[in-house]
Amino acid sequence: MAEKIVEELKPFFEPKAVAIIGATDKKGKVGNVIFENFRMNKERGIFKGKIYPPVNPPKLDEIEGYKVYHDVKELPPDDTDLAVIAIPAKFVPATMRDIAEKGIKAVIIITGGFGELGEEGKRMEQEILEIARANGIRVIGPPNCVGVYVPDTGVDTVFLPEEKMDRPKSGPIAFVSQSGAFAAAMLDWAAGEDVGIGKMVSYGNKIDVDDADLMEYFIHDDEIKVVTFYIEGVKDGRKFMDAARKITKVKPVIALKSGRTEYGAKAASSHTGSLAGADTIYDAVFKQTGIIRAEDFEHMFDLAKAFAALGHKLPKGDRIGIITDGGGAGVMASDAVARFGLKMAELSDETIKFLKENFPPHAVAGNPTDVVGDTDAERYRIAIEAFTKDPNVDAIVIIVLFQVPLLEEEKIIEILADYQKKSDKPIVAVAMGGRKTDRYARMLEERGGVPVYPTPPERGGVRAMAGLVRYAEYLRKVKGGE
Amino acid sequence: MAEKIVEELKPFFEPKAVAIIGATDKKGKVGNVIFENFRMNKERGIFKGKIYPPVNPPKLDEIEGYKVYHDVKELPPDDTDLAVIAIPAKFVPATMRDIAEKGIKAVIIITGGFGELGEEGKRMEQEILEIARANGIRVIGPPNCVGVYVPDTGVDTVFLPEEKMDRPKSGPIAFVSQSGAFAAAMLDWAAGEDVGIGKMVSYGNKIDVDDADLMEYFIHDDEIKVVTFYIEGVKDGRKFMDAARKITKVKPVIALKSGRTEYGAKAASSHTGSLAGADTIYDAVFKQTGIIRAEDFEHMFDLAKAFAALGHKLPKGDRIGIITDGGGAGVMASDAVARFGLKMAELSDETIKFLKENFPPHAVAGNPTDVVGDTDAERYRIAIEAFTKDPNVDAIVIIVLFQVPLLEEEKIIEILADYQKKSDKPIVAVAMGGRKTDRYARMLEERGGVPVYPTPPERGGVRAMAGLVRYAEYLRKVKGGE
Repeated sequence: MAEKIVEELKPFFEPKAVAIIGATDKKGKVGNVIFENFRMNKERGIFKGKIYPPVNPPKLDEIEGYKVYHDVKELPPDDTDLAVIAIPAKFVPATMRDIAEKGIKAVIIITGGFGELGEEGKRMEQEILEIARANGIRVIGPPNCVGVYVPDTGVDTVFLPEEKMDRPKSGPIAFVSQSGAFAAAMLDWAAGEDVGIGKMVSYGNKIDVDDADLMEYFIHDDEIKVVTFYIEGVKDGRKFMDAARKITKVKPVIALKSGRTEYGAKAASSHTGSLAGADTIYDAVFKQTGIIRAEDFEHMFDLAKAFAALGHKLPKGDRIGIITDGGGAGVMASDAVARFGLKMAELSDETIKFLKENFPPHAVAGNPTDVVGDTDAERYRIAIEAFTKDPNVDAIVIIVLFQVPLLEEEKIIEILADYQKKSDKPIVAVAMGGRKTDRYARMLEERGGVPVYPTPPERGGVRAMAGLVRYAEYLRKVKGGE
Repeated sequence: MAEKIVEELKPFFEPKAVAIIGATDKKGKVGNVIFENFRMNKERGIFKGKIYPPVNPPKLDEIEGYKVYHDVKELPPDDTDLAVIAIPAKFVPATMRDIAEKGIKAVIIITGGFGELGEEGKRMEQEILEIARANGIRVIGPPNCVGVYVPDTGVDTVFLPEEKMDRPKSGPIAFVSQSGAFAAAMLDWAAGEDVGIGKMVSYGNKIDVDDADLMEYFIHDDEIKVVTFYIEGVKDGRKFMDAARKITKVKPVIALKSGRTEYGAKAASSHTGSLAGADTIYDAVFKQTGIIRAEDFEHMFDLAKAFAALGHKLPKGDRIGIITDGGGAGVMASDAVARFGLKMAELSDETIKFLKENFPPHAVAGNPTDVVGDTDAERYRIAIEAFTKDPNVDAIVIIVLFQVPLLEEEKIIEILADYQKKSDKPIVAVAMGGRKTDRYARMLEERGGVPVYPTPPERGGVRAMAGLVRYAEYLRKVKGGE
């Protein structure tokens, strides 16, 4: 089963040859943008496969030096393993038949407009699905689908040109979205935030490939360390739960499920036709299967960032130590520890003694430990040294307001990187500020493996740490019980 | 009373002559940074007053062309109206006596280190306060105080040089903070986000000038449209409530109060010595006095932005209309409407009819109205036209995913600006994405007076709208009852 799904879905992520059906040479048209994405990625040496741009209706013999096949049937035999369809809805079923005949087993249907056709559109979706099932074809979409984005292999079916939407760099996070526009906005946002996305799948109403299939696939995908879902509804609850139980034993899954309230459920039903169902059921399903539920979009990515950096050293318990150079931020973080159901670590007598011996009298040895506004990097190091050694501390939240006058920025980054590496306790940082802070935060993430949460101090970092704690608890429970 | 407080506090915000006590020519030293702030702002033509840099200990006759007075007593008579003290704690009481003798009535004590002195520090604070009271001097700080920042008049006692911390532009938001480091981080953050701050006051433990004084002052400050507070505790509850009741009838006040939980309260008590008190009491006080409580830092600024732009046309009720070009974002916004206790407007039959007549069949006429991914600006205009005319809609949240291919960015910005101007219904926008979206969002805010919330769709914009609705309800209640 597991190997079958990998074999089936692999062409979506690393096709040997992709046929773009509907490509024209008209700039800005959906098919053309997709063709250009692949073409540019091939020029950059990222996309290694072949590209076939068949034209519909047939007018040209060549586009940008690529030979045009005027019909799917004309494509070279036994070669194309992915077809991307971007032609009007009414032509799709016939094209699916040609694809089946040609033996192509993976199809992304970008085409919108099935909804416009009303009942006829639904009938067509059914017909497409029947052709797919009868011929062992896997389908991503339609509708509300922008397809697949894989920066490492150059697959990019997102029909928004780079003038409209930036592409994020690669990274260990997979993002799966039931909403196409939201997926596009998210990729653009991730690019701006410098968040790495290893694979994005926008499957719309998931008439075929669904959450469970993707979870099965991602179990075996070593590039992906954490999987995030935006979903409005799940169709096959049993299949979903089975796949979720399997993957969460191997890597964390985070779900943002909307349609939580009556208003939201109503909106979801007119968007993707999802029957949202009682939200409490989803809560229970997520809890039982070890999926971490995100409260909102930011929470999803706060968590993803934490798991990507710290999935290998989850906290052993829920006792949090806080170190800060700003008292106010320490208060807010302490509130957050309570709010997200964690505990403030009770520092050992040795820790308190060590801090008092090594601190100037106006710094506060405690939890939070306040190294205060005249701190240098060394004072932070003393605190971190004590916290990482203290058996009463399971995980550490470090607040670094880089604005304070005597703090050597490069040095504190080195210190945090060093302890993140040598300590088995997870460390997350909170750094609030402007351009300079952003730069240091990025350095801390890249060099130091320390996820940094920009603002606000009372939420981001502590809330993300709570996710690590809960997932670690789930793993202890299910692995203990195996 | 009101005029008295304006007269008393005005020198903090627009001094005619400022004496910086403790200035040296050593770069990076607190006193020197503050002197440099004033000097640079004078060179830029922003600070119009005189600057006196007395030196302690006295070594120089001139700093950067400014004559040095070696003692407060030597300052030209009847001139200095603001003193900024940045000398070691132990010298402060004697200096206060000189200041009293000289007749200076406004003092900012930046000096830290009172805490280091333990009981002796507390005694000194008491002594300072007694000198102030006996001589009609108003004091901001100490400790945990970075003083005052007013971009319009060039007052800037923040002792972090521009290499460490950016300064925000001016704007209609006042920010008052009990935490000095947090105030600095916030200014830096605001600069990065392009949020305008008209006045910032960091008063530390507020031994003299407190929240109530500042609220009284801001009632009469026409530059300030919304006042935000970060507080850990209130000392004089009665005074606070009286001032709050007065100002909230005139302009909105937003409070972020930390120390909400047992953990937070404990941390607050070691930070500013605030007795946080039961959080439910603060909740009740805020509710009774019309102060809007922010859940977190981001919420505070989301609200401030909404009030700054839309304080003049608050919603007449709580029925929200949502227009979106992304179905998923519409679902999340609908959830948020429920979560923040608002209602989804039930569109009138005329609105639905008008939309259906003017929309292509695949766009969704409803609430949310989904103009869908192939929208142009004109389709948005049709929806906005209908929503602003519909008597069942009190306020409008517009989600614009600028990534969609056919949307003319400049045109949608013009349309939103136009309706924000001519409709009496408040409009907020949600736009999620990367660099391009940020640029358009800024244009929409600056040209269009439409506050834009970047991400996530399920929180920012709708939560801010909820703040407008609640404050409008408070005003109707208290003004109806007058």
